[in-house]
Amino acid sequence: MGDYQVAGVQQDALGAVQLELGGNPNTLALRRPFDPLAHDLEASFRLTRFADLKGRGCKVPQEVLNKLVEGLQQDYNSAAEHEHAHFMHMAIPRIGIGLDCSVTPLRHGGLCLVQTTDFFYPLVDDPYMMGKIACANVLSDLYAMGVTECDNMLMLLGVSTKMTEKERDVVIPLIMRGFKDSALEAGTTVTGGQTVVNPWCTIGGVATTVCQPNEYIVPDNAVVGDVLVLTKPLGTQVAVNAHQWLDQPERWNRIKLVVSEEDVRKAYHRAMDSMARLNRIASRLMHKYNAHGATDITGFGLLGHAQTLASHQKNEVSFVIHNLPVIAKMAAVAKACGNMFQLLQGHSAETSGGLLICLPREQAAAYCKDIEQQEGYQAWIIGIVEKGNRTARIIDKPRVIEVPAKE
Amino acid sequence: MGDYQVAGVQQDALGAVQLELGGNPNTLALRRPFDPLAHDLEASFRLTRFADLKGRGCKVPQEVLNKLVEGLQQDYNSAAEHEHAHFMHMAIPRIGIGLDCSVTPLRHGGLCLVQTTDFFYPLVDDPYMMGKIACANVLSDLYAMGVTECDNMLMLLGVSTKMTEKERDVVIPLIMRGFKDSALEAGTTVTGGQTVVNPWCTIGGVATTVCQPNEYIVPDNAVVGDVLVLTKPLGTQVAVNAHQWLDQPERWNRIKLVVSEEDVRKAYHRAMDSMARLNRIASRLMHKYNAHGATDITGFGLLGHAQTLASHQKNEVSFVIHNLPVIAKMAAVAKACGNMFQLLQGHSAETSGGLLICLPREQAAAYCKDIEQQEGYQAWIIGIVEKGNRTARIIDKPRVIEVPAKE
Repeated sequence: MGDYQVAGVQQDALGAVQLELGGNPNTLALRRPFDPLAHDLEASFRLTRFADLKGRGCKVPQEVLNKLVEGLQQDYNSAAEHEHAHFMHMAIPRIGIGLDCSVTPLRHGGLCLVQTTDFFYPLVDDPYMMGKIACANVLSDLYAMGVTECDNMLMLLGVSTKMTEKERDVVIPLIMRGFKDSALEAGTTVTGGQTVVNPWCTIGGVATTVCQPNEYIVPDNAVVGDVLVLTKPLGTQVAVNAHQWLDQPERWNRIKLVVSEEDVRKAYHRAMDSMARLNRIASRLMHKYNAHGATDITGFGLLGHAQTLASHQKNEVSFVIHNLPVIAKMAAVAKACGNMFQLLQGHSAETSGGLLICLPREQAAAYCKDIEQQEGYQAWIIGIVEKGNRTARIIDKPRVIEVPAKE
Repeated sequence: MGDYQVAGVQQDALGAVQLELGGNPNTLALRRPFDPLAHDLEASFRLTRFADLKGRGCKVPQEVLNKLVEGLQQDYNSAAEHEHAHFMHMAIPRIGIGLDCSVTPLRHGGLCLVQTTDFFYPLVDDPYMMGKIACANVLSDLYAMGVTECDNMLMLLGVSTKMTEKERDVVIPLIMRGFKDSALEAGTTVTGGQTVVNPWCTIGGVATTVCQPNEYIVPDNAVVGDVLVLTKPLGTQVAVNAHQWLDQPERWNRIKLVVSEEDVRKAYHRAMDSMARLNRIASRLMHKYNAHGATDITGFGLLGHAQTLASHQKNEVSFVIHNLPVIAKMAAVAKACGNMFQLLQGHSAETSGGLLICLPREQAAAYCKDIEQQEGYQAWIIGIVEKGNRTARIIDKPRVIEVPAKE
């Protein structure tokens, strides 16, 4: 029997979170920092201590994963599958490593099932925000395919074996509430899920849509002359680590010459805000401006996902990235760490990152302007599509664009 | 970006498993025990050591879960949700604690999205069988709702941080292969998933169907006079634990007076076989014999799930259970353990257990006969539906039916 088919939170646990929300769940700017004491927890409580890895940094390395799943394409050559490989004369990529969603033709009326799942570990200490980020991150895979309507979500939760009962009873409902609020913001609902106990706290979900083939954009249509647009800044993983190091003097000493405490706190909040933001409007505008394909930037970093997207192209194209928009000061922090993050090489993991979109050159500026008008957030033209062998690279000395925290 | 949209195994890792399968993946009876040496692993390799909890025993306790999600129904009273609460004049249980699947009305042509997710920890040492069991367990939630066609599956994998590279490269492809083979057996495919590293090995999935409302059976229609049928024996958790104790003298000494090594090995294989078996035919026959509702027996044990099913009934009924079919010798083992399993009280966790079905009295015998003819496995009438207040109980001295291992 399924675990539960419901999601939410105890009413009495919501006093503190309402305060933190400044009475308005949609006004992130007004959100106060999570205060463990206000929830009757120890002042030292940190959600991020309930896992040894953070956010999308938990991914199995891309090359390992490729090894584990290699040789699968030929494994999927039975008649049953060939039957579905084409649909309405469109080559539907029923199976394909690296696509953001699976697309499955259905038995009913030319409809397709578009699905994705993702789960990871806490990377911010605010349980409510962690729930929002997890939900935004799952939905982002749909948005990357141009699918703007999600029909249903499931929530996947691992309650850490190391949490006290009190911690569990405070934290889990807040995570659930954040997840659900984000789902409501996306115009969908959470109707079920699964909760287990696990050494590390885990949070994730499943997003599903049933749609007409014209509702999604197969991300394989880039042409020479397109430009690449990115809709959120890089550096989320650097920011959440730097923030954690505020409590760890030996770590903090490594970066304090290049960054102030205030800088780090601002970057952390900018990162949280960015990770919790839905890519939905970015997705909707892909249709308006005739995007040729997109992906979202998560665990494999900008370059990892750019390479996967490039490898799926029908045309002989390559992606060249010139600009790296990075949360303010985080490029300096990454450099001071001796490049453990590989941020400027494009390998730093992101969580709930932006969409990387191939747009016709003449549409890109209008796309960026439109998204800024609708959301108040910038998007950036970061590269170009040229003739090539379906690879992606970052130029030798990319321009780093410092993206300040929003006031 | 999503992790991968594919599932399977390296061809070269399949030599040993083909041997273990006796050349025929569908002939479980011929399957040899998993031999770590044949896969170049240490003889002492045990998949079950990569988690401290087993199978559905990892569930957050039912009462804790209820507390975490209590007060949610009133939380779901926004206009947006009420709008969907009825559909085609049917009260579709869009949200409901304890239902096996979520059912979501879709924007398209009177169709519904039926979904479920489940994940847990290794409880058998054979990675291939573990994959099959995980898949059968996820699908079982659909089958409990009378949904026999699954349109798509996603796989959720946690690779243990404690596995060596070698272990990982052997074990993970085998788990994937088992999962995928079970999906093929069910007439569906695995088109995606998510793989992370985690302290404990984790395996699970998502099953999704888009169907007409007449394809599923809302499990709320039991009437006085119905009987309760169970389609798999109880005792899987006892059997997998007893099997693990063969390696642990101090544990083994507690049960060796009531059971032989041979008994335990037989029970273990019976349990594996049973857990890997799909509830699909059981589900199909629910339609033929006009079932009034069903659930599947997993982490909360027979009584836990019976109580949840009873609580959802429209009519004023209660369930009374008289018979407990148990894998041979496992009742004695459970008793010898001082009832740590609470097997005869109905609380022992099961993994990928049978369907518990409310059937019209005059149909039940035919149902049991039909399933035995089609599958070669017995089903049992274990109780009755009488007038009551939507609860379930096991009588004082239930009859234990010893279910022998199939030869």
